[in-house]
Amino acid sequence: MSDDEVNVLFMPSGLRGQFPTGTTILQAAQRLGVDLESICGGQGQCRKCQVLPQQGEFAKHGITSRVEHLSAFTETEKHLQSKNRLKEGRRLGCNARMLGDLVVDVPEESQQHKQHIAKAVTAYDIQVQPALHLFTVTLSEPDMHAPMSDKRRLQQALIRQHNLPLLDCELSQLRLLQPALEKAARQVTVAVYQFEKIIAVWPGEKKQVYGMAVDLGSTTIAAQLCSLVSGEVIATADSMNPQIRFGEDLMSRVSYVMMNEGGDVAMTQVVREAFNQLAKRAAKTAGIGLDEILDITVVANPIMHHLFLGIDPTPLGGAPFTLTTDQTQVLRAAEIDIFLHAETRVCTLPCIAGHIGADTAGVILSERPDLSEDYLLLVDVGTNAEIVLGNRNRLLAASSPTGPAFEGAQISAGQRAAPGAIERVRIDADTLEPRFRVIGCDVWSDHPEFAEKSAKVGVSGICGSGIIEVAAEMFLAGIIDQDGVIGVVEGKASPRIIEDGRTWSYLLHDGEKVLKVTQNDIRAIQLAKAALHAGTRLLIDYMGIEKVDRIGFAGAFGSHIDVKYAMVLGLIPDCNLDYVGSVGNAAGTGARIALLNFPSRVEIGEILPRVEKIETALEAKFQEYFIEAMALPHKIDPYTELSKVVNIPVPKPKAASDAAGSETSRRSSRRRRSRV
Amino acid sequence: MSDDEVNVLFMPSGLRGQFPTGTTILQAAQRLGVDLESICGGQGQCRKCQVLPQQGEFAKHGITSRVEHLSAFTETEKHLQSKNRLKEGRRLGCNARMLGDLVVDVPEESQQHKQHIAKAVTAYDIQVQPALHLFTVTLSEPDMHAPMSDKRRLQQALIRQHNLPLLDCELSQLRLLQPALEKAARQVTVAVYQFEKIIAVWPGEKKQVYGMAVDLGSTTIAAQLCSLVSGEVIATADSMNPQIRFGEDLMSRVSYVMMNEGGDVAMTQVVREAFNQLAKRAAKTAGIGLDEILDITVVANPIMHHLFLGIDPTPLGGAPFTLTTDQTQVLRAAEIDIFLHAETRVCTLPCIAGHIGADTAGVILSERPDLSEDYLLLVDVGTNAEIVLGNRNRLLAASSPTGPAFEGAQISAGQRAAPGAIERVRIDADTLEPRFRVIGCDVWSDHPEFAEKSAKVGVSGICGSGIIEVAAEMFLAGIIDQDGVIGVVEGKASPRIIEDGRTWSYLLHDGEKVLKVTQNDIRAIQLAKAALHAGTRLLIDYMGIEKVDRIGFAGAFGSHIDVKYAMVLGLIPDCNLDYVGSVGNAAGTGARIALLNFPSRVEIGEILPRVEKIETALEAKFQEYFIEAMALPHKIDPYTELSKVVNIPVPKPKAASDAAGSETSRRSSRRRRSRV
Repeated sequence: MSDDEVNVLFMPSGLRGQFPTGTTILQAAQRLGVDLESICGGQGQCRKCQVLPQQGEFAKHGITSRVEHLSAFTETEKHLQSKNRLKEGRRLGCNARMLGDLVVDVPEESQQHKQHIAKAVTAYDIQVQPALHLFTVTLSEPDMHAPMSDKRRLQQALIRQHNLPLLDCELSQLRLLQPALEKAARQVTVAVYQFEKIIAVWPGEKKQVYGMAVDLGSTTIAAQLCSLVSGEVIATADSMNPQIRFGEDLMSRVSYVMMNEGGDVAMTQVVREAFNQLAKRAAKTAGIGLDEILDITVVANPIMHHLFLGIDPTPLGGAPFTLTTDQTQVLRAAEIDIFLHAETRVCTLPCIAGHIGADTAGVILSERPDLSEDYLLLVDVGTNAEIVLGNRNRLLAASSPTGPAFEGAQISAGQRAAPGAIERVRIDADTLEPRFRVIGCDVWSDHPEFAEKSAKVGVSGICGSGIIEVAAEMFLAGIIDQDGVIGVVEGKASPRIIEDGRTWSYLLHDGEKVLKVTQNDIRAIQLAKAALHAGTRLLIDYMGIEKVDRIGFAGAFGSHIDVKYAMVLGLIPDCNLDYVGSVGNAAGTGARIALLNFPSRVEIGEILPRVEKIETALEAKFQEYFIEAMALPHKIDPYTELSKVVNIPVPKPKAASDAAGSETSRRSSRRRRSRV
Repeated sequence: MSDDEVNVLFMPSGLRGQFPTGTTILQAAQRLGVDLESICGGQGQCRKCQVLPQQGEFAKHGITSRVEHLSAFTETEKHLQSKNRLKEGRRLGCNARMLGDLVVDVPEESQQHKQHIAKAVTAYDIQVQPALHLFTVTLSEPDMHAPMSDKRRLQQALIRQHNLPLLDCELSQLRLLQPALEKAARQVTVAVYQFEKIIAVWPGEKKQVYGMAVDLGSTTIAAQLCSLVSGEVIATADSMNPQIRFGEDLMSRVSYVMMNEGGDVAMTQVVREAFNQLAKRAAKTAGIGLDEILDITVVANPIMHHLFLGIDPTPLGGAPFTLTTDQTQVLRAAEIDIFLHAETRVCTLPCIAGHIGADTAGVILSERPDLSEDYLLLVDVGTNAEIVLGNRNRLLAASSPTGPAFEGAQISAGQRAAPGAIERVRIDADTLEPRFRVIGCDVWSDHPEFAEKSAKVGVSGICGSGIIEVAAEMFLAGIIDQDGVIGVVEGKASPRIIEDGRTWSYLLHDGEKVLKVTQNDIRAIQLAKAALHAGTRLLIDYMGIEKVDRIGFAGAFGSHIDVKYAMVLGLIPDCNLDYVGSVGNAAGTGARIALLNFPSRVEIGEILPRVEKIETALEAKFQEYFIEAMALPHKIDPYTELSKVVNIPVPKPKAASDAAGSETSRRSSRRRRSRV
């Protein structure tokens, strides 16, 4: 474990993980899927996320938990304590940041059963039906009068004692058979893959075996280590994708391959190395052997998917964007240089098209639009935005070229979501003065203690969610007009709006580092949002509907942004805001579902060929919609829902759809609640 | 290629191979399965094996053939020339030894269609039905309007153009798919294994692919490289088993493993290395790429089989001799460090029991006792003798602990069959003087030119066949009695019978090296022959028959010995000598059958479980028979057949079985002819 990371174990769930120092308890809980309520989204307002940090040695878990391992009580917490609304010893999960290892109790009243915007699968209702099962048998003694190989004896015992078919056994495990029999008085446990083949042999009885679900992103790689017996997530681990050194975004990596002989091999190598390291860390955190991880599922975008498999992604860098394989691939981990157990299997989920990968397959598996009665729009924003729209009758998918603006790239002050990054912004409509919050500091910038408290992390840039908010707030404050042009606001003189060459910029922060929002930044945001909007509109067109019923944002971007602001900017189409929300790391959840529930791997293989792929680049209408959607807010939607949220001028409200929308909303609000 | 080896190509068959310098053309032809007649068995008497060596460059085959690359004309050949019975330019295959690369024509009149003592399969009637097939397809161009992965496009083309089922493709080959399509205008050839999986992809059209059948012996490793399209053997290669450095015989190798940590790993490593080298040599000889070898079949005794697979053979070194696996194993070659094509498959034939291995499975596949109407006895003599007896109704198998005496080990002057080894012996019944022939010299020791001609090779020891002959001749000459005791022959004073401590020895050769046959040598032969005899007798007992109908000797020992002498010594039970003969390297032939005819792999897997294993060590009768069979000749058989062959006193002839035996002989002689 690195010094920059802390271990945390949540009780009573037993979920545990490793996080960067400074992560709040709430963030960790959300990442691990711990049942900890939070209504305000970590703003310190709802007071629901109260937890009880433990003091003492948790030898079994290898954790020494100290209440001092948490950041000092915040003003908010002190205030609550003084009013007797934060009980002795408790902390607010969203305020307390972890500085060392911890065991944290989640009191009964802080638990909830989280609702998901999609009805189908949540972390708790995955039916554990893994690809491999353990069977323990005791073999009869060898008998010279009836000679029989030990393999045959094992096969017969499995048939007789466990009703299994005749199973072959991997050679690497055959080698272990006789030593195992000798070690444990002829008792062995075997792992059987897909009821077809023995892929592991251990002496004596063995009751646990593990699997890992991995979301191989272009920026981060995230692993969830699960028991294949209970289905529990026993540890998580993240790392940066080391391919970043070859190019920030996917296209620059493909360019690297095109321009450098062996570039794909180098990238394949580093991502596999990172994968191995990640598995090691996860196993160490969970206190299990690396060779106890026997099954792996992987989701990834097509380029990452091909690179991980060692397939040259060059053809994915240009039209016609032909995948080598779009099917589920099942491999021995060793075949792709992943070294866990000798026979660990890796299953990569299928891809949809050249731009729509196994990560989208994971989102579908997590949110199951194919089972939905109403129209569900799923949006996964990264360098591209993958969009899925549909219901039980029909599914459409497209990829929209948003570019990396939403991830903080191509933005002058943009940066990744890391300590020091501005993640929340408010602009006073009268004074045009901003206030903001940075990751790693628990007070807003207008708080008296901000200078002191932010000293450690500094104010270094603006991350994705900050970019959305600042642009939306600038728009709401009139600093930018509907065409996205920054300019002086009539009657509101402000030193924040400054001339910057031939255009104007907005001075967000004038500290050690000067952070401005430039006209180019706003253009980048406009382009990105226009692409996303045009893509969703194209699918809505194709589907022949007026309005979607629910919208789910998948991925890190989706879980950080405030959907209100996304709607202000016109990132998403018109929808009742109650039914818009984050679906969390749906791709990763999909990988975990595939890991724990083998039949779902078959299902996703059957669903994907039914998905209609819309190639935005070939659609004349996409260009048209794209240009229309450059405006802020875009001029094509009725904004019925938006008008309820923020008081902004709505260009051309359509009364009819307004009524219909409200009706839908009333009808279904009894059934569901948004997380947001 | 080593300097000690020569390349030879036979025409018109096109069979080629690499042999030690000094090998006769006949020996090479026999090893390659070239159709070259020989009745006298290479004695220079029948004059049938006439061949026409070629002069010139055979560029296509990479051979420069010179008639000077043959040893000088022998007296026999000169004699035949003078009588116009050896045409201009021709040589006697058994007289001419190869000293350099050669292309050799086999004239029409020297060709025959060799008969096999077993009826079933010969080299020429293996039905070529390999495990893998080539298919060439041209894929449609990618289409952005109907995006489809190239893998799916390939699958559909194979279904539509070749009526194949939906085939998965190995990842290593998927990586090659798009580059191959690009290289050859979207035409590719794939190799499909068992109509189940694509294991190779090449650009454009490919019409040939190869396989290798390997006989992994404890002393030598022999490979036959075959076209999987035509079935032809295109090259052979041999090498010593480098495990010899760990122990001459199998049991000493197992002891090495028991006494040395990691000893099995070391032995596994060296045998796999030798395997890789052998494949390289065979591919080079044939002028093909190493990566064109896609399928391999292997036969081996159980210990070699387990070591090759990397399974610790220790349990095979002691009771209850439990195999880890007795089943056919199909592996990726790379899994066992055999590096040819990335997806080359290795299939090891199944084993029968702890002492009876995949080599015996090969013998069964070659000779098919399970299809025989009459009782066929198959004997494979090595350190142990594996014995199979049966017909279409019932099959028995046993292993008899003959020890390595028949291989020249445990014999004071014993050595391997190599130049300088005595391989033939005659003893004058009156003078008791011996005459002999050594490997690498074409005249008998009483020939005037022997000293000159043998100078190059010397007289260094006695090989297996020499041991059988000298013991039998000593017995026939009365130098040893029925109990195997060497002594002075009454009325025949001889300086050859010498006192040697407390026993007598027979002085076979008194040259630079003194070669004696000692009492201990005779004891070793007696023990070996008694073990073999007792084993066969036990099986005959079990079968409830009086007499076997046919006997086939498998392996090198079987093809060198003179069966008459084997019968004099009582190595084999009573049988019409016309039906006793060598079945050649039946184990290797079995491997080739399995390679070229995939259904036979399934068949052998079905035959073996039907074979009844007789564990000689558990049979009280085996001990009894063993003791009885110590006598020379053993006292239990009627010797009806033997008495026809050599004029020796028969202890207790049984008139009844005599008649029965002759009857059988007459009945079947019309149907078959022996090779011998």
